[in-house]
Amino acid sequence: MRKLRLKWIALFLIIFQINQISAQKKYEANWNSIDSRPVPTWFEDAKFGIFIHWGLFSVPAWGPTAKDGVGVYDRYAEWYWKGISDPNRASFKAFTKFHDKAFGKDYKYQDFAKGFTCEMFSPDEWAKVFEESGAKYVVLTSKHHEGYTLWPSAQSWNWNAVDLNPHRDLAGDLMKSVREKGLRMGYYYSLYEWFNPLYHNNVKQYVDDHMIPQMKDLVTRYKPDVLWTDGEWDHPSETWKSTEFLSWLYNDSPAKNDIVVNDRWGKETRAKHGGIYTTEYDLVHDQNSTGMEINHPWEECRGIGSSFGYNRNENLEDYSSSKELIDILVDKVARGGNLLLNIGPTADGRIPVIMQQRLKDIGRWLKVNGEAIYGTRKWTKAPKVGKNTKIFFTAKGKDLYLISTEWKDEPIAIEGISKSSKVSLLGFNGLIKTGIKSGKFLITPPVLSPLTNPSQYAWVYKIENVL
Amino acid sequence: MRKLRLKWIALFLIIFQINQISAQKKYEANWNSIDSRPVPTWFEDAKFGIFIHWGLFSVPAWGPTAKDGVGVYDRYAEWYWKGISDPNRASFKAFTKFHDKAFGKDYKYQDFAKGFTCEMFSPDEWAKVFEESGAKYVVLTSKHHEGYTLWPSAQSWNWNAVDLNPHRDLAGDLMKSVREKGLRMGYYYSLYEWFNPLYHNNVKQYVDDHMIPQMKDLVTRYKPDVLWTDGEWDHPSETWKSTEFLSWLYNDSPAKNDIVVNDRWGKETRAKHGGIYTTEYDLVHDQNSTGMEINHPWEECRGIGSSFGYNRNENLEDYSSSKELIDILVDKVARGGNLLLNIGPTADGRIPVIMQQRLKDIGRWLKVNGEAIYGTRKWTKAPKVGKNTKIFFTAKGKDLYLISTEWKDEPIAIEGISKSSKVSLLGFNGLIKTGIKSGKFLITPPVLSPLTNPSQYAWVYKIENVL
Amino acid sequence: MRKLRLKWIALFLIIFQINQISAQKKYEANWNSIDSRPVPTWFEDAKFGIFIHWGLFSVPAWGPTAKDGVGVYDRYAEWYWKGISDPNRASFKAFTKFHDKAFGKDYKYQDFAKGFTCEMFSPDEWAKVFEESGAKYVVLTSKHHEGYTLWPSAQSWNWNAVDLNPHRDLAGDLMKSVREKGLRMGYYYSLYEWFNPLYHNNVKQYVDDHMIPQMKDLVTRYKPDVLWTDGEWDHPSETWKSTEFLSWLYNDSPAKNDIVVNDRWGKETRAKHGGIYTTEYDLVHDQNSTGMEINHPWEECRGIGSSFGYNRNENLEDYSSSKELIDILVDKVARGGNLLLNIGPTADGRIPVIMQQRLKDIGRWLKVNGEAIYGTRKWTKAPKVGKNTKIFFTAKGKDLYLISTEWKDEPIAIEGISKSSKVSLLGFNGLIKTGIKSGKFLITPPVLSPLTNPSQYAWVYKIENVL
Amino acid sequence: MRKLRLKWIALFLIIFQINQISAQKKYEANWNSIDSRPVPTWFEDAKFGIFIHWGLFSVPAWGPTAKDGVGVYDRYAEWYWKGISDPNRASFKAFTKFHDKAFGKDYKYQDFAKGFTCEMFSPDEWAKVFEESGAKYVVLTSKHHEGYTLWPSAQSWNWNAVDLNPHRDLAGDLMKSVREKGLRMGYYYSLYEWFNPLYHNNVKQYVDDHMIPQMKDLVTRYKPDVLWTDGEWDHPSETWKSTEFLSWLYNDSPAKNDIVVNDRWGKETRAKHGGIYTTEYDLVHDQNSTGMEINHPWEECRGIGSSFGYNRNENLEDYSSSKELIDILVDKVARGGNLLLNIGPTADGRIPVIMQQRLKDIGRWLKVNGEAIYGTRKWTKAPKVGKNTKIFFTAKGKDLYLISTEWKDEPIAIEGISKSSKVSLLGFNGLIKTGIKSGKFLITPPVLSPLTNPSQYAWVYKIENVL
Repeated sequence: MRKLRLKWIALFLIIFQINQISAQKKYEANWNSIDSRPVPTWFEDAKFGIFIHWGLFSVPAWGPTAKDGVGVYDRYAEWYWKGISDPNRASFKAFTKFHDKAFGKDYKYQDFAKGFTCEMFSPDEWAKVFEESGAKYVVLTSKHHEGYTLWPSAQSWNWNAVDLNPHRDLAGDLMKSVREKGLRMGYYYSLYEWFNPLYHNNVKQYVDDHMIPQMKDLVTRYKPDVLWTDGEWDHPSETWKSTEFLSWLYNDSPAKNDIVVNDRWGKETRAKHGGIYTTEYDLVHDQNSTGMEINHPWEECRGIGSSFGYNRNENLEDYSSSKELIDILVDKVARGGNLLLNIGPTADGRIPVIMQQRLKDIGRWLKVNGEAIYGTRKWTKAPKVGKNTKIFFTAKGKDLYLISTEWKDEPIAIEGISKSSKVSLLGFNGLIKTGIKSGKFLITPPVLSPLTNPSQYAWVYKIENVL
Repeated sequence: MRKLRLKWIALFLIIFQINQISAQKKYEANWNSIDSRPVPTWFEDAKFGIFIHWGLFSVPAWGPTAKDGVGVYDRYAEWYWKGISDPNRASFKAFTKFHDKAFGKDYKYQDFAKGFTCEMFSPDEWAKVFEESGAKYVVLTSKHHEGYTLWPSAQSWNWNAVDLNPHRDLAGDLMKSVREKGLRMGYYYSLYEWFNPLYHNNVKQYVDDHMIPQMKDLVTRYKPDVLWTDGEWDHPSETWKSTEFLSWLYNDSPAKNDIVVNDRWGKETRAKHGGIYTTEYDLVHDQNSTGMEINHPWEECRGIGSSFGYNRNENLEDYSSSKELIDILVDKVARGGNLLLNIGPTADGRIPVIMQQRLKDIGRWLKVNGEAIYGTRKWTKAPKVGKNTKIFFTAKGKDLYLISTEWKDEPIAIEGISKSSKVSLLGFNGLIKTGIKSGKFLITPPVLSPLTNPSQYAWVYKIENVL
Repeated sequence: MRKLRLKWIALFLIIFQINQISAQKKYEANWNSIDSRPVPTWFEDAKFGIFIHWGLFSVPAWGPTAKDGVGVYDRYAEWYWKGISDPNRASFKAFTKFHDKAFGKDYKYQDFAKGFTCEMFSPDEWAKVFEESGAKYVVLTSKHHEGYTLWPSAQSWNWNAVDLNPHRDLAGDLMKSVREKGLRMGYYYSLYEWFNPLYHNNVKQYVDDHMIPQMKDLVTRYKPDVLWTDGEWDHPSETWKSTEFLSWLYNDSPAKNDIVVNDRWGKETRAKHGGIYTTEYDLVHDQNSTGMEINHPWEECRGIGSSFGYNRNENLEDYSSSKELIDILVDKVARGGNLLLNIGPTADGRIPVIMQQRLKDIGRWLKVNGEAIYGTRKWTKAPKVGKNTKIFFTAKGKDLYLISTEWKDEPIAIEGISKSSKVSLLGFNGLIKTGIKSGKFLITPPVLSPLTNPSQYAWVYKIENVL
Repeated sequence: MRKLRLKWIALFLIIFQINQISAQKKYEANWNSIDSRPVPTWFEDAKFGIFIHWGLFSVPAWGPTAKDGVGVYDRYAEWYWKGISDPNRASFKAFTKFHDKAFGKDYKYQDFAKGFTCEMFSPDEWAKVFEESGAKYVVLTSKHHEGYTLWPSAQSWNWNAVDLNPHRDLAGDLMKSVREKGLRMGYYYSLYEWFNPLYHNNVKQYVDDHMIPQMKDLVTRYKPDVLWTDGEWDHPSETWKSTEFLSWLYNDSPAKNDIVVNDRWGKETRAKHGGIYTTEYDLVHDQNSTGMEINHPWEECRGIGSSFGYNRNENLEDYSSSKELIDILVDKVARGGNLLLNIGPTADGRIPVIMQQRLKDIGRWLKVNGEAIYGTRKWTKAPKVGKNTKIFFTAKGKDLYLISTEWKDEPIAIEGISKSSKVSLLGFNGLIKTGIKSGKFLITPPVLSPLTNPSQYAWVYKIENVL
């Protein structure tokens, strides 16, 4: 009897699956249809990814810093070419002063190509660093606004990493190593190219003959898990033919099942269309958003310092500490978002050791506290998160996680929970005293000595079976 | 009365001109129509032009020489990139041996871009050298098979002389100087590009989006007097859309009046279609031709040595002497052709002084003997020219020129002329004895001392009023 | 009356001083006399210095690491030239493998000179980093075994930092900034030069005409507080004329008052003659020494990783953590020594941020706990220090400091102290319970929460008035 | 009887030779003694040598030309370093203008070292060119005023052609090839070094430890046939210890038998002491001298253009023609001197083809007319040679050579010869009519056609048996 029933269930499941496949939705080239595709769940479960900005800008590897009195968006070292070329940017003076002194006025950006040597590049070692950081996915700049591609793109002949130095398929080599470690691999891709005359002379031809072929080549070659577009602001998505491309990506491309895209597909699309919504150094496109209200997967990206591309000009004071980074991760995850933390490798192919240190510290913290991060969702009843919030919540199944980014010696009261439940401090063996007072759930922090303290950064109380 | 008549004549002329303009032939995109356009007469009158091969190949500036036991077509230094890449070429071993030793195996062709400095380039000085050589037109490689352009071509972004070293519009700057000296300016342009992936992946797209836009840009920008195509052999002219382009060039381009093109428009077109016919180091496409039979303007091109691009490997023994070059010029002109003599400038922008010397010597000879060259046509009754011919003829109006490339102390007999006429030795004041003997016209060379000898190379007897 | 007395005292003091000056000891050129000079007390009080290895070796900036299976003395990146040249060294294969791949077999060490650009070098910023680390002195390689000098040495014409890249007096510029911050400045100087033919052909002439003039120039120019020699092992001190030089240095040089030298003056001198004794990655020349027995100032030097010169090949796992470094500092100071902690700047003139991080962490620890380090001496009654020692002692005046490199929740017993005294935990406000039990002094560690814990590394109990 | 006599003669000769050897004069270190050594006869017989200026100055390879309005001594490209450094020189503006534009203000002379690649250098090919030029000896700059040596000098560590690019013993390699062709090999050596601080700080030490060891090394290593010093003008010969060095050279060096030196040994020595006297672009130190009065071997040196080091700035108009060079050779030889004609190889190791052309033309002329040059001496009865002299004389044994640098159709009268003798025109088979008229010997030039003319340059009449 039991056997029979299993057989029927199996049969039913097979038929169901076949139907599903044959009925697989075909996405049409309009935002309504494109937006109807759910973001693959792996993404929201992953929470923490590594962004990598690497390209010819890694050769001068320079941007202004806070000392120069310019805002964070003017410090990006990957904007070097624009930096020395556009007198209207706030950082023009800083960039040209450095450039003229270090390289000379007559030194052109293209001349940097010879310095992109990458002789120290070991994709396996990079992948190991990523794995140990606790990140679950990696996004590499396949092409930044400079137009130089990190893969042998036929459309960027003699302006890519195989034709020029380092004469190597950086995008492909890293992909292999990252996937071998079980992480997901994706690519950043800039729609526009600052100085490509084709783009300026004939954007339609640029899109048809250069951009779309490049994106399709990238997707077909490497089947990425993420396609992270950018540089979309000059034109509406119609000009970029974004919905057409996305319908191909979702219907016909070899990456269609798992691919995650973002919301940078045209000047009108951020926080509206595409896949996940993006913020950048907390630049949020809906000014009133704290991330808590958004019922949509989203992701904050930022550097460890104030730049995405490696900036030799940054010193210790320009780098976020490990504590600050873990606090940011907690903050974003509690708000329902992911953190795509950026590293800027050097022109010779290394991850600066200070960045390795930060990633390692995050990884150590996640080894103890990762269950409060991975696979969680924001707690819908959580108090609104603000600038000075020190107590954060995440939810997973029936469990709630309270993350205290500052240690409290006083009891912590949680509104919205009234039933008693088991509480533990992750990484700590002792019992945690709890109680209910005035309708709030109370947790009394334990006495920790330096020997029993599980963390130097944030502390996580797991409250089981309360949701 | 007189006034009235003049008015009528003026009116008539205006109407005539209007008719002519409205009736100006429109060339259609087929060979019959295209071939019906006469070659502008300036070309046949000019006789002597300067070819310039300059590009990234001028940086390694190396090719095998006769000592390496390879044929002349395998010695071209401008084929360096192909030379180190194609194991099927006879010169592969020689090229790679040199490359590996001088630059290292890992040194890529694109890496040479940084060496194309041109800091010594003075277009005015070049133009002066050309003028003094007696040449009437100049043809510069705007783009060779490497694809790198000497002008800021939007289609060759970051693979041209403005984006990369030397960061200068070489094609435009030379044009200005050459025209200021009263010489005509033209450009060589390679249809194919050895290593452009677009060319290999999708030749149609290459032609439509890359090649045709480049040629139109070149013509529109500089209004050249010559468009000297090459690299046509992979495909028939239909693939290259040659007749379509030429109909635009002849009907609508700003260069339509004076432009001269050649016969390299598709694998089937040499010595058949297009404009002038071309030979190259005496490679003649009709095997039986001596040039004498062709009733069509044609042009021989060759280097001073065995290469077009500058070849540092060539020593004195590889260079033709001034005498040899003047003999070649005489030979080609007597056969009805032009000579497009090539020079290979260096990567720092100089015309090697040995080439200046050769051009100067030709110029000095032409100053004395130029009237036997410029504006002449082959003498239809001339004896057939062969390998050992030392007596050549050219014709202009009623005059005949006898060019003796070796001095003769004996009387020279000319068949086909029986009437007496005045004869002079160009550059020599004395009288020349003539006579008729056995129906031939006899010229008795004068006695010359080293003091009265007008030439070290070829001697010209002008026979007036005999045609 | 009172006035009169003051006058007499003043007079007496003047006379005393004059006597002292005139009687100032003249040191003779023999070890007995030289060794009789006491090490200036500033040195033993300073305890913590920064060593800087910077030179042409910073350009390849590569050495093997632990992974390559070679010992620490074979990993030094500053030995690169020797590394690629000497087949007898254990690291020869590793060095040549890297060199041939990264630069090519034909690339010579001298060719690296063009890469020593130092365009990011800011001596003021460096000095600030040193100051904030809590270090009291700085020792820079004025010349390493490669012979290239960081100052414009007349003896190293065209092999120094002014004649070649970076075309700047690095030694002088850093000195000014370091002294402005109130730190002392010294120089490392290698007696021998690996590949200087003069050294190999005629060591006497090398010493007389090259080495001694260089050292005197260095001392006269910059009046350093430390002259840190090395590379002495090939020859006895007699060959190097060390005692002659030192008698000049002590008697006649402008640095004579404060200068500190070390014990590397000849193959027989380490831990015997000269000034302070030196160890290097714990290489101790008297095998039985723990440093505790030595009644002589000494200093341990080591890198943050396994190299003195910057090694791009070192990743996070190759760097000592801040805790490890503070433990080393505590260990050396407790044994009566100094720590000269090395940093390896990059060829473009930066202190790698990971090194800034380590120095900053040490500085933060010293800000709280520095009184247990600076100006202290080893406690003569301290228990012998061993590999697993976690409790260390230092003494200053009447006070004793107990430094616990691991936190103890149990009472700590100190032998040798039996009188009761006031105890505090540096950086902690609460009272510390003490007692005497079985003739030992007992300290009971306080209860610390993460909020009151003054340190992440070592904890210091100050025991007042017990000595 | 006859046999007996021969034996005695042989014995006598052997004894005589032994005596001579044992009695070989020892030269003392004073000018009287040094000057008493006769110049080896090979030198005066050789007449024509090749000077080679090659060094780091061959990398920028630039000097002003006549167009810049500076005198010939200010155009030397080998003075580049001084050119960009010394504001007191007339060419300072021209040099710095070029340097700043082409390389940038911050580009130092030492940075040129990386460009001295010499990858095309083939000493055998060079030697062949020299041999075919008819030259009998070669003098290479072993070290110019820049101090960089073309051989691995221990005194110029890291400032020589083996330690730096091209990493090759240029001096030694060329020597071997030159001698294999049967030519003599010598070296130029600059006593002073513009920027060597040792020279400026302590000339005595410079001479003792640097200069003399270098010269002895050079002589011992390569046993040169010529040691051609220069850069002597700052100091008297006493400072340079010239006579001491020369006494070693003449008495004890391995080159003592054949070595030829010049007169540049101290500010007081030109045209007074040493070996041969030297002129340079006709700069004659005895202002009244024409060379005719000097009864001492002498030599004129000059470039083919206005520079010794290769000057990329020189165009055809800056080069002497082959006719001009042959005229100069004839002029110098007729005055009793030698011609040391300079070539300037390129930084990649080639002899510019225009220089090959000039040497070839001279060689061709010498092949026909060399007997009027080699082994001759000036004719003591020759009319004084002046600027416009076109008829020159040389003498050898009983024969007199009349060299006519312009063709004469009129009879040539020679004063001082009154006896009839056989006359021939070298390279011409016909008879030459002679006569005596008014006590002068008359030569009537033959009738030459272009076919029988033996020369394009100077014509030589050999008058046999008249001396």
